[in-house]
Order: sequence, then C-alpha cells, then structure tokens
Amino acid sequence: MNFNYDVIVIGAGHAGCEAAAAAANLGSKTCLITMDMNKIAQMSCNPAVGGIAKGQIVREIDALGGYMGLVTDKTAIQFRMLNRSKGPAMWSPRAQCDRGKFIWAWREVLDNIPNLHIWQDTVEELIVENGEVTGLITCWGVTFHAKCVVLTAGTFLNGLMHIGHKMLAGGRCAEPASYHLTESITRHGITAGRMKTGTPVRIDAKSVHFELMDTQDGENDFHRFSFISEPRKLKQLQCWTCFTNEEAHEVLRSGLKDSPLFNGQIQSIGPRYCPSIETKIVTFPDKPQHQLFLEPEGETTHELYLNGFSSSLPMEIQLEALKKIPCFKDIVVYRPGYAIEYDYFDPTQLKHTLESKIVKNLFFAGQVNGTTGYEEAGGQGIVAGINAHINCHGGEPFVLGRDEAYIGVLIDDLVTKGVDEPYRMFTSRAEYRILLRQDDADMRLTERAYRIGLAKQDRYDIFCKKKEEIERLTKFATTYSIKADKINDTLEALGTARLSHGCKLIDLISRPQITVENIAPHIPALQEAIDQVKERKDEIVEAAEVLIKYKGYIDRERTIADKIHRLESIRIKGKFDYANLQSLSTEARQKLIKIDPETLAQASRIPGISPSDINVLLVLMGR
Amino acid sequence: MNFNYDVIVIGAGHAGCEAAAAAANLGSKTCLITMDMNKIAQMSCNPAVGGIAKGQIVREIDALGGYMGLVTDKTAIQFRMLNRSKGPAMWSPRAQCDRGKFIWAWREVLDNIPNLHIWQDTVEELIVENGEVTGLITCWGVTFHAKCVVLTAGTFLNGLMHIGHKMLAGGRCAEPASYHLTESITRHGITAGRMKTGTPVRIDAKSVHFELMDTQDGENDFHRFSFISEPRKLKQLQCWTCFTNEEAHEVLRSGLKDSPLFNGQIQSIGPRYCPSIETKIVTFPDKPQHQLFLEPEGETTHELYLNGFSSSLPMEIQLEALKKIPCFKDIVVYRPGYAIEYDYFDPTQLKHTLESKIVKNLFFAGQVNGTTGYEEAGGQGIVAGINAHINCHGGEPFVLGRDEAYIGVLIDDLVTKGVDEPYRMFTSRAEYRILLRQDDADMRLTERAYRIGLAKQDRYDIFCKKKEEIERLTKFATTYSIKADKINDTLEALGTARLSHGCKLIDLISRPQITVENIAPHIPALQEAIDQVKERKDEIVEAAEVLIKYKGYIDRERTIADKIHRLESIRIKGKFDYANLQSLSTEARQKLIKIDPETLAQASRIPGISPSDINVLLVLMGR
Repeated sequence: MNFNYDVIVIGAGHAGCEAAAAAANLGSKTCLITMDMNKIAQMSCNPAVGGIAKGQIVREIDALGGYMGLVTDKTAIQFRMLNRSKGPAMWSPRAQCDRGKFIWAWREVLDNIPNLHIWQDTVEELIVENGEVTGLITCWGVTFHAKCVVLTAGTFLNGLMHIGHKMLAGGRCAEPASYHLTESITRHGITAGRMKTGTPVRIDAKSVHFELMDTQDGENDFHRFSFISEPRKLKQLQCWTCFTNEEAHEVLRSGLKDSPLFNGQIQSIGPRYCPSIETKIVTFPDKPQHQLFLEPEGETTHELYLNGFSSSLPMEIQLEALKKIPCFKDIVVYRPGYAIEYDYFDPTQLKHTLESKIVKNLFFAGQVNGTTGYEEAGGQGIVAGINAHINCHGGEPFVLGRDEAYIGVLIDDLVTKGVDEPYRMFTSRAEYRILLRQDDADMRLTERAYRIGLAKQDRYDIFCKKKEEIERLTKFATTYSIKADKINDTLEALGTARLSHGCKLIDLISRPQITVENIAPHIPALQEAIDQVKERKDEIVEAAEVLIKYKGYIDRERTIADKIHRLESIRIKGKFDYANLQSLSTEARQKLIKIDPETLAQASRIPGISPSDINVLLVLMGR
Repeated sequence: MNFNYDVIVIGAGHAGCEAAAAAANLGSKTCLITMDMNKIAQMSCNPAVGGIAKGQIVREIDALGGYMGLVTDKTAIQFRMLNRSKGPAMWSPRAQCDRGKFIWAWREVLDNIPNLHIWQDTVEELIVENGEVTGLITCWGVTFHAKCVVLTAGTFLNGLMHIGHKMLAGGRCAEPASYHLTESITRHGITAGRMKTGTPVRIDAKSVHFELMDTQDGENDFHRFSFISEPRKLKQLQCWTCFTNEEAHEVLRSGLKDSPLFNGQIQSIGPRYCPSIETKIVTFPDKPQHQLFLEPEGETTHELYLNGFSSSLPMEIQLEALKKIPCFKDIVVYRPGYAIEYDYFDPTQLKHTLESKIVKNLFFAGQVNGTTGYEEAGGQGIVAGINAHINCHGGEPFVLGRDEAYIGVLIDDLVTKGVDEPYRMFTSRAEYRILLRQDDADMRLTERAYRIGLAKQDRYDIFCKKKEEIERLTKFATTYSIKADKINDTLEALGTARLSHGCKLIDLISRPQITVENIAPHIPALQEAIDQVKERKDEIVEAAEVLIKYKGYIDRERTIADKIHRLESIRIKGKFDYANLQSLSTEARQKLIKIDPETLAQASRIPGISPSDINVLLVLMGR
C-alpha cells in the first residue's frame, strides 16, 4: 500500500461513489476516501431515489455503466413510474429504498471493483503544485499522491446545523464536519460560497394514526431503474399521505421569530423547490394546507420520513405543529428536522468535464457544485470520474450534450450559468425533453459508454439485442399495412374513428386511443412480431411504442437539436480577447471573461449574453 | 411527546440496548438516547460475539429475556462452540456476525418494544437535585425528565484516539466524542478515571493471499446463542489464520519509540487480555510468532478484521510490519488500527444493582464501569435496566449471585474489587464454573426473569417444557438398571471396562468413553426415552447428558456455594462504624469504608480484607 493513485475521490456520497466506480472501472488506480466507511452512499435526507427529471438522470447513470440504478433496484421497497398519464417525456421512475441496505449494497459494489480502494479518513489539505493538484493530506497525517483528485464532499465542508436558535457544527446529524479543506482550495483562487439545505423530523411509526391517513401503493410491473437489473426482491411497502391545517400553520407562524431562516441566523439560500414548511407558509400565506408524505425508511424499521415537513424551527414548535394534524396527535419522533449550511464552489470555474479551470486535475462533483439531490450528484460524479480517468490515461474529454442527457443539461447549466441557489433538475430545464426520455437513456448513452470502456460487455449485449428488437418492431409498424375492413370494428370498439381505406400500422398506433397492447390482439402479424421478443418483452414493446407514437415530436426536436449543434461546433475558446472587444456590452464582456465559453452555443446560454452579442462574435469570426 | 420518562438510557451500545429493552419490556416508559441511530449496537471492535466465559454471559442475557443472543443468531456468519474437548464448564459459544445487519436487527428489536422511544442527540448534562438524578439536557437544548438514568456511554466520554504521534478527538473512528457529561457527573462526587483500548486494521480481502493462510470453519449443529431462536439463516463463512514472524516483529520494534503506548503519550491502562501487537512483542520478547485471525465483517463486504493485531503504532509501521507476513505482502487496508482513551467511573461507588451509591437513581453499565467487551456490557446493561425499572415501580432489587451467573460474578467483582485495568470476564474469575455453564443459563435464570416479568410467556413455555424433558431423562438415567450381559459387548467395543454385574444407566454414562449418542442405540429403553422428546431434542439430550455425566462435580460445587450463602446472608451494611473499629487493620478500615459491603461474604472478597478482619466482624456481631 503506497498511497499513490491515479484518481482520489474525496467523499463517498452519491457523487463520490459513482466517480470512484467509474474511474476504477475504466482502469485508473483509484482511492475513495470517506470519513465513515459504514455510511457510504448514506441517503442523508429522504430514503428515495428518482422522481421527475431525477429519475431520468438515474437511468442515464445506469446507461453509462454507473450503479445508482442497480443499487436502487436492489434495495427498493416501493417503486412507481410518475406521470404515466402524461407523455413519455414526463415519465419518471421513483423508488423508496431501505436506507441501511442501500449503504451495504453500495459497499458490495465498491468492494468488488478491482482497482478501487476505500480509505477511512478525513482530508484536510490538497497539495497543489504549479497550479496542479498532486495529492492531499489527511487528518491522520497520511500523504496521498494522485494524478487527479475529485472533490465530492457534499454538505460536510464547514457544515453548520441549525434548529431554532441552536447551532451545532457537523457535516450531517451525528457526524463531524470537515474543516480546513475549503481554505486549502480557495487559497488557489477558487471561489467558495455558502448554501443551505434542510431535512424533516423522523417519526416513530408506533406513534402514528395511520387510520387517519391515505395510502399510496407502489407499482410492481416491469419498470426498474437499471437497464440490466433483475426484478425487485424486497418486500414492497406503502407510503401514506396527509395534509397540514390552519391550526398547525398557526403554531408554525408563532415560531417564525425563532426561525434561523427568518431571523437572520441563516444567510445562505436553500433549495427553492424543496422548501421548509415554514418557508411554504410564508410564501403561500393563503394556502390552507400542504400535503405531506410519510415514507418508510426500510424493510424492518419503524422509522418514517415526513416528506414535505423539512424545518429548522425550534424543536418544540415542530412537534407542537405536528400534533395539530390528527394523524400525528400522539407523535413521537427520533429526531427533529434541522437545517445545515455548507460550503460550495462556484461551478462557473469548471469545464464541462467538471475539472477546475484554475487548478489542473482537480474535479468537483455533487453538492459542492451547488446542486441538490442524490441523482444530480451521481450524474456529476460519473462524468467527473470518467474525465479524471481520461486526464490520467489520455482520450477525448467526455462531455454530454444538452440533447443527449439530462446530465448534459445539468453540467452545462452549472458551468455556463452558475448557481445562486441549490440547483435541482426539472424537465423544464431541458430544451429537448422528448429526446431525453427515461425509456431510451440506454439508446442515448450506452454505445458511448461502451466505446470508452465503461459499459461492460454484458450491458452492451443486452443493449444491442434490445436495440435490434425495437428497430424490428418499429420497422414492422412503419411498413405493415392494415386493411380498413379488417380493423374497423376494433377501432370503433376502442372509441376511435373507422378507416375509410387502408393505412400503415404506425398511423393507427399514433392515435391516442390505441396502444400496442389493445390493438395487438386484433392484428395477428403484430402479435406475432411481439411474441418473437424473448427477453425484456414489456420494456422493448414500450420503448418501440413510444418511438412509434411520438415519432413526429421526436423527429422535430431532433431537427432543432441538430441545428443548434452547428453553433455548438463553432469553437470560440481562446479566440477572443474579450476585454478589448468594445462592440460587446460591458455585461457581456464581463460574463464572457468569467465563463470563457467553449463554443458559440455555450456563449449564447450565458445569462446576460444577448443575441446581438452573439452576432458580434459571429461577425468577428467572419461568418 | 413530552420528554418525561421513567427511565432514560444514555448511549445505544451493547449495554444501552439491553438496559433500554429491559426497562421498557418491564413496563417503564423508556427513552434510549443515541448520538447516531444508524449505529445502534455498532460493534466497535471485532464483529464477533461470545467466546470463553463471554459466550456464557450472552446465554445468561438471553435467559433473562435480553436480545444479544437473538440478534447474534440472526446475523451470525460463523458459529463455533469453543472448548468442546474440555468439560462443559468450559464450553463457550462464539459467533462472527454481519456488522451492518447486527445494527439493523437491533433496530428492529428496539422499534418493536412498545414503551421504548429512541432519540438521536448528545447528552451534555445530568440534572441532579438533592443527590438524586432527575433528568438531563442535550446538545440540541432539550430538557428530559426521568425517574432514573442509566449511563452506557462506552468509549465516547472525552474520547481521544491515537495513531503514533497523531491524536484525534472522537468517541470511535469517524464519530465525535461526548464532552461535558463526565464533568457534570464528577461534580457530584463520583470518581472518574481514564482507560484505553485499541482496535486493529481493517483489511481489503482483495489484497490478501488466502492461499497462504489456514482456514477455520464454523459449525452448523444445533447450538445457538438464544434458547428461543430459530436456526441461523445467513450464509456461513470461513475465517483464516496466520502467524506474525521475526521480520514483522523487527519492524514493529523499530516503531516502539513512536508508540503512544510506550513513549508516554498514553498514560491510561489497556485491556491486559487483549493486548496490542506491540505490547505482545515487548511482553514476550522471545516469542518468535503470534497467531492472527482474519475474520469476515459481513456476508457481502470485503472488509476483514485482523484479530490479534490491535495497534496504535504509526500507520506506516503497522503496514510495513504486515507486509513482512507472506499472506499480507500486498496488503491494502481500509483504515489503520488505533488506540482510544476514554473516561470511566469507579465501579466501587456502585451498588450491586449498578445504581450509584452517591447519586440516587443514576445507574452505570458497560465500558463506563471499566469493563471491556460487548458481552460484559450487555450483561451489566440488562441488570441496570431491570433495577432502574424497579426503582421507578417498586420491587426487590434484582441482584444475581456469584453462583447464579457470570453476570453476578462480573458485577460483584466490579463493585467489590474495583478496576485498575479494563475488566474482562474469564471462567477463572468464577468460583463455581461448573454451575455457570452455557447449557443451563436458562435453568439458572429464566424462572427469575419470568417472575419479574422480563422473560415472556413464549420463552417461559419453552423453558418449562425443556426442564420437564431434562428431568425425565435424568430421572430415567438415574433409575434405569442395565444388565451386564446385555451391554458388555458394547462397552468393550467402546473401549471401556465390562460390567461384572448390573448397574444404573447413570453410572455408565458417567464413563468418559460413553456418550448418550453412542450408547443409546444399544439400550432400546433409553432410545425410546430420547425419542419422546419432540422439540429441541439435541439441546435437551446434551443438557441432560451434562447433568448426568457431571453430577458429582455439580453437587460438590452446589454444596460449597450453599455454604458461602450463609456468609452472604449475614448483612453488615450500616451495622459498623468502620472508622472507629481499631481491631481492624488500617487497610481493612479504609477498604470497608470505601466499599461499604452489603454482606460479610462481599466483605471477604474485597482485596486487602483478610480472614482475621472477617473474624473481627463476626465476633463483633456476636457470632
């Protein structure tokens, strides 16, 4: 054991685990340093993975050869596909997981990767020589040498927790914070700021009146997070829902004067789309109730997570407010909600590879870049891990396009626009939502991952077979003709217009009333084509159906994306001395200097850069 | 939730979990406060339960209605009955457990106990009014009120970790220490001291040359820790063994100058019978090798525990020394070994109930009393929990005799003799080893536990049925006569002397060459008696056989124990003004004042009290 590595990853949360796994699987000698190897991939907040847009990210991580999807499937205690009533761009998988089993499933993954070591320690200092990171020093005094370092420290850097007026240092409840490391990074010109997040009470199931709540069941069809995992094995559990009420709000309001969010104690900004309950009642004073979700933390524990009730109000206010909600009148909690402030680093100082523009071979991923969410963290982690490996061993930088992956949108937003509040992914952040569907993440990404060696042969074989089958089915639908008289009675029964003359199958399936499932029994050749699919039939039929039904939309977005690609291909980095371009607005000059965009398309996405600024650059380039 | 409890237990290790479970199961409204509810019953050192004398304690905890045995059985990945070649007094169960599953199995136990709450927080101050504990205050500023408080804080009080010259505050690797609490206790006249313990490196299985090691398999017969648990369910795994060598010792010796144990950095005393590897090479300079055991940490993890190599030498010395051992030549570790110093409280200031003599309703159990070992902690925990409940709700103090349980020996040793080094149980500490067997812990204790309401009906029913069956079999063996000519050929075949005339079956079974198993096929009536046992047959036959074979020894020890009981029954507490008893030696006066023994027997066990001192007291009492 010589403490010399290609890649060292600092922090074993959702970003760090994916980063370390990716680098090691690609062949880099990798060390994952964690403060506590029994808390690897700990879900600090709710014990759930996925959700709208986030679920797509997990599918993308999986398609690239990452593990979040596999671990989620293995430890899921409830699975749902959200938004099934909307178009497939909106379908998003979400799962509750067993928090304890999630940790040990990740440990098993990491333990079995040949080039990967885990080291339990706290990093206190980066070693930077001539603008390049070369190693680090830990609190036990170990000096590590590395070609690349990936920082994925989550909320641990100078973490400070708040409940009411009480403040406590720590990286997460019950865990020490990490000191000194931020300062050893900012010393080199990297800008740090503070952000805030929060988490709700954890409730003892024995104290809940479930009879006063509504239930929410999972689904148990073929959908999963990973394109290669086996069916779920754990017992599937219910969630419960209820609502706050005016009485509870009144108690919460009475605590606002002691709220660190409103009395000035916390200055940093929290996640807009995951607000505390006190923020909700202040922002929406007229709303008489807010929905709460009570979610199981595991297969065997009585611990429940109260989604929607994040708070840093004084503990007695939290408890008193909950008692006003009938199902919680006898509530007993394991611990109150709390807020935590932590350091992040300005992501506009990063390249699309997530390498720092300032310190060579230093990568940042996850919450340290100002994002929120396990999925956003994991997505950055895998990209950082891949590029750290590439920095060590050569190869083209691995960058995902905005039309290729939500991860591409995420990283481009971070490095181009920066963050002034914790960044969470939404489908609305993507221009090409219908191209970035959960069902086809493998079609978008597995080939690329296989080419760099991250997607393994077994995954690639499954992918190829699936691709072939989908193509066979879509081709069949595109070419197969239906005679009107053979199908009209069926069409009428399905509530859709009769045909006056024959048409292609694709035209029928495009109708909203028609699905492959309801039409196939009436078209023997289609049924036969489907029956030829031997493995993963439901998944393949669904993917083909989406392609058939939404062909028009998909083609249209593809065309727009390809147009933009032309701007993406106009590389401008290093070609201008922005400070002396007087024809640009002052704001544009400042922003272009700060972000130093790679391409004209990226320049066009920088907040404050106008179309006329882009025209100036185009003219200067002689176009 | 009102933060008013009958019993509050501070610390959820092996002592705290048993204490809280016992108090709550008896009906006390109980709160278990832990710094981290994801680390409940964490096995801080090796992932194993039981061993010589310790295994007996776990059986006793189980017989009393505790949970350590059940959780161990549920999570065991290797089970062995040690010392099977010796007499049954020496048989001791031992199991490797899955560390992660052990935690969650305990969580499940605790979550399902109706009167028990878990609260995640750090206790900073006890509230003591008029010499009586009435509550406590936590770091989040919560004030709890309690009738009784049980302190089971393990190594967390002012914990300080050492590796070479490096020192780091913490209660356990990766976890913060607990401050202020010790001071809030000593303020009331309770004496604190410092002790030290240590733990070895954790090794990555991928780096080990297993082909150069010997293996050690578990056993998979009927033996278990709990008298009521089901067969083991987890995959059973191997352990491995190897030896240190002179080359490794040389490296270790070269590090002694930087060893906190030998350079004065650590002043407190460590566990004599669990010494660090550096202590071993210093204490036994001529020994060319020491055996090491490599033990799995779980069903799925690659993490291995290197039993026998505890160390606080500088990390590079630990690693370099290990590399000299062929199977570890390519070693990779997750973390180095380290030592930890922590506060304990003088146990001679406790009653046999583990209540403080100084602060009423304050109990101490586990490592805070100067013991070492999960089993010793659990044994104290259950007794403290029972007596805390009794203090709240009335009843006779629950004290176990030295002839009744190793737990009785343990507590009597602690409160009578005190500790000057971490106390570990051995069979040699018990006067009545043959009475304190692992096979009959239920026979010794379950009836008592049932009477106070701790052993539940299902346990008691199993116990009664077993007792009845054992009595039937022993009675059969005592009364059944064997004719010489019917058995002589068998006896000869078994290598034991022929009978000249008939004898009772018990006399045959007492012969070392004869077992119930090898003789039963030749005595149809015996086989029939055995076949009548419907459930737990192997366990019952073994228990009966022990009683038959060792009847003489058992009866003899019972007689001696009963004699001593007479001294135990002579209560002297409060009857003497020792300071003015000039006929006692000065040492005896001082010790008797300090310990203030309950009985004359206890007085006789105080180190420094001579038989003539006891005679003085007897004379003064007019006996």
